[in-house]
Amino acid sequence: MIDARPVGYVIGLLVAALGVTMFAPLLADLMAGNGHWPVFLESAILTILVGGLVALACQNGVSAGLSIRQTFLLTTLVWLALPLFGSLPFVLGGTNLTFTDGFFEAMSGLTTTGATVLTGIEGLPEGLKLWRAIMQWLGGIGIIVVAMVFLPELKVGGMQIFRSEAFDTMGKILPRAAEIASRISVVYVAITLACAVCYSIVGMNSFDAITHAMTTVATGGMANYDASFGAFGAGPHYVAVVFMLLAALPFVRYVQLISGGGAVPLLRDSQIRVFFVLIFTVTLLMTLWVWRTFHGFSEAGFREALFNVTSIMTGTGYANADYMQWGPFAVVMFFFIGLIGGCAGSTACSVKVFRYQLLFASIKAQIRRIHSPHGMFTPRYEGRPVSEDVLNSVMAFFVAFMVSVGVVGVALALTGLDFITAISGAATALANVGPGLGPEIGPAGNFAGLSDTAKWILAIAMLVGRLEIMAVLTILSWQFWRA
Amino acid sequence: MIDARPVGYVIGLLVAALGVTMFAPLLADLMAGNGHWPVFLESAILTILVGGLVALACQNGVSAGLSIRQTFLLTTLVWLALPLFGSLPFVLGGTNLTFTDGFFEAMSGLTTTGATVLTGIEGLPEGLKLWRAIMQWLGGIGIIVVAMVFLPELKVGGMQIFRSEAFDTMGKILPRAAEIASRISVVYVAITLACAVCYSIVGMNSFDAITHAMTTVATGGMANYDASFGAFGAGPHYVAVVFMLLAALPFVRYVQLISGGGAVPLLRDSQIRVFFVLIFTVTLLMTLWVWRTFHGFSEAGFREALFNVTSIMTGTGYANADYMQWGPFAVVMFFFIGLIGGCAGSTACSVKVFRYQLLFASIKAQIRRIHSPHGMFTPRYEGRPVSEDVLNSVMAFFVAFMVSVGVVGVALALTGLDFITAISGAATALANVGPGLGPEIGPAGNFAGLSDTAKWILAIAMLVGRLEIMAVLTILSWQFWRA
Ligand SMILES: [K+]
Ligand SMILES: [K+]
Repeated sequence: MIDARPVGYVIGLLVAALGVTMFAPLLADLMAGNGHWPVFLESAILTILVGGLVALACQNGVSAGLSIRQTFLLTTLVWLALPLFGSLPFVLGGTNLTFTDGFFEAMSGLTTTGATVLTGIEGLPEGLKLWRAIMQWLGGIGIIVVAMVFLPELKVGGMQIFRSEAFDTMGKILPRAAEIASRISVVYVAITLACAVCYSIVGMNSFDAITHAMTTVATGGMANYDASFGAFGAGPHYVAVVFMLLAALPFVRYVQLISGGGAVPLLRDSQIRVFFVLIFTVTLLMTLWVWRTFHGFSEAGFREALFNVTSIMTGTGYANADYMQWGPFAVVMFFFIGLIGGCAGSTACSVKVFRYQLLFASIKAQIRRIHSPHGMFTPRYEGRPVSEDVLNSVMAFFVAFMVSVGVVGVALALTGLDFITAISGAATALANVGPGLGPEIGPAGNFAGLSDTAKWILAIAMLVGRLEIMAVLTILSWQFWRA
Repeated sequence: MIDARPVGYVIGLLVAALGVTMFAPLLADLMAGNGHWPVFLESAILTILVGGLVALACQNGVSAGLSIRQTFLLTTLVWLALPLFGSLPFVLGGTNLTFTDGFFEAMSGLTTTGATVLTGIEGLPEGLKLWRAIMQWLGGIGIIVVAMVFLPELKVGGMQIFRSEAFDTMGKILPRAAEIASRISVVYVAITLACAVCYSIVGMNSFDAITHAMTTVATGGMANYDASFGAFGAGPHYVAVVFMLLAALPFVRYVQLISGGGAVPLLRDSQIRVFFVLIFTVTLLMTLWVWRTFHGFSEAGFREALFNVTSIMTGTGYANADYMQWGPFAVVMFFFIGLIGGCAGSTACSVKVFRYQLLFASIKAQIRRIHSPHGMFTPRYEGRPVSEDVLNSVMAFFVAFMVSVGVVGVALALTGLDFITAISGAATALANVGPGLGPEIGPAGNFAGLSDTAKWILAIAMLVGRLEIMAVLTILSWQFWRA
């Protein structure tokens, strides 16, 4: 049996902490004078109370550290417990969402997916808009810490390739995980502030600037308007592109930068280079396509291509145009770039660039082995040979991801969703991108009209995708619970 | 430089042999008295002449064996050269197809894909119907031999796991590859004859019985009617199901059976068991779905579900109903089961059951390694540990397959095809299934209306898929040509 008390203790504390953050939207509602603030008071009290009680109840079982199985349980249960309480303001508040809708919205927020069941978002109380942004922002920093500190130790999805990186190259400067986490938080806050300032400069009001900065840096994608970034002009579009890109890079590089490691690791990181080559190539193709199809040679056409390609590939999920109207090439392209994703150790999700690098390195080694059976060919990453262990993890992740898209797609189709909605819905939830394809859940639609069953399937898919699939599969294996 | 002469010699001989087989449709046309026979005479003379000349020209370079690189070149060029000449009867004949359409039809035939650009097939001269069946039948036996004799030696796509099987367990009885090939041919002919006899018994005329037996056992799927098996009744449907299943099992098991090895290897083969569990489960689900949606409890509903599930999962591609009308669950399900496929060493294509078994074994080992980092967990297949080499090959194949679906899908979308047509077209061509999804290329449509560019993309995808992708990637790698 696993001693669940240390897990319960940490989760209790985190839930209580989430409750404390509810005072921010409470204040926002008070200042806006919209009378919605009691909802956040109720939610905060309930959340802090339950979280505190759970922590107290489990306190007697707290030990010095967590075992591997406890860490798994913690990581997964945190992303179940927080959405549960994060949904309270939606369920209790003026939006009067059902529990399903509230949980979907909170899960979508905390996993930084950004899919929404809300319409008329511009008319929501300020507190609720801020609450969506806060959940995404917390989810973003949470996942970077998990990806930098937990997953490499747990050897999930090949993230162990970054273990030596985080602990060795920074070893002398930053010996402890908590130290890494706190430095990453500093960077995260700094980039968010910079983003908010830039949004203000290009004309957003300060409330929009702050909330959108939070959902941008989290590559979350929740916006304060039904039209997403269609509500803004060229200035905010370009600012968003810059900060979506910054948010999709490995945060450890920023930490190295401010810790005196210089910009060289950042500039030499092959993951970053491949990521930018992909963004550049796809944007170029899409711009030419948009120009050819609609605008002719125009800045707006380039901007729409750049913005939406960056948004989908970083897994942010903002839209400033309904690219379902751009014709089949664009639609199919947006489907597949959503399956690429950003860099590991960022807020971006999906398969991620480094995994494709490793997979292609492995295919290359295979091909050489095939035509020269007596040679030894080892796949390399950043010049160093990749261990079989890492390669197997990455491949297991990739297969599990693709099979999950199939299983979730079939499950969604069973609820009556058509082919494009089911397939793209499965992919967008597992990759934590946000919008799907088709008229219903595409960039111009939202998830409100889906059945409750479909919403629960999608919410679970978001969780599974955010925790890199293998973490959840591990929890679900019966051997995990044995012994 | 690779000495291409031994390759040219074998290809010349095979082309000439293809030319000789053209006398069969010539005879069929003569007997039917439809006046179409000169087309086959012209085609046969041209094919035999060119093939013979190429063989003669290359004869001086023939050596005792082929190098690995020569074998790769041979395998790939054969599947390019044969469709080139196989297209002659379509281009020269009464159908007057363009070169693109003729090549597409011949490539679709010889790769056992079965996608067609022809309409009004029932009105075609008998010779052409027989020619389509002959190409599929030759393609089927060709690919079994390649899969059993060449691919394991070339270590493509993890097929080396069957190397010891074909050469060791049968080693004493069947020491040479040619012996294996000839025994497999005997089995192939026997099953085809049995299938034709059964089709006759349940009411097909002898011409239909023979041609459909050829396309059934090849899991090819070309039929003599636009309505495919919709033109037949319950008897032929059930016979087709039995023989599609038989054709999707590893032929080496039949060889063992007739070589005195008994039925035990067949019954104990885990690949076969998993395949039947999948067929059973999906058919059950689909039957319930069809009953619920349409017929209620009925034999016809069960038969339609069984027939089409078997047809798509074995990669045959016959249809006896327009399952695009069965609603989203059926459509999404048919998409994904086409990506499963039959057993290795059969005429079936796609990813194949044994690869999923190996991939899941690897994921299982990963999960155990994750929660017990100090244990050693080796993936097993049929109880034996799987070598890293095999596992890497299989994973490289899977990734290359999925990425190919993406690349071909985007390319098809560029030609203007919509999402479902582009994605399912890419998948059906690479998996050599035949029909795609959607109104255009779905079970009730055909490929005639696509642009020439789309047809060429699909024809190349069929070739790439039939040669297990990695074989073609190997040829395309620049290191292959160096040194
Ligand atoms: K997102
Ligand atoms: K087929």
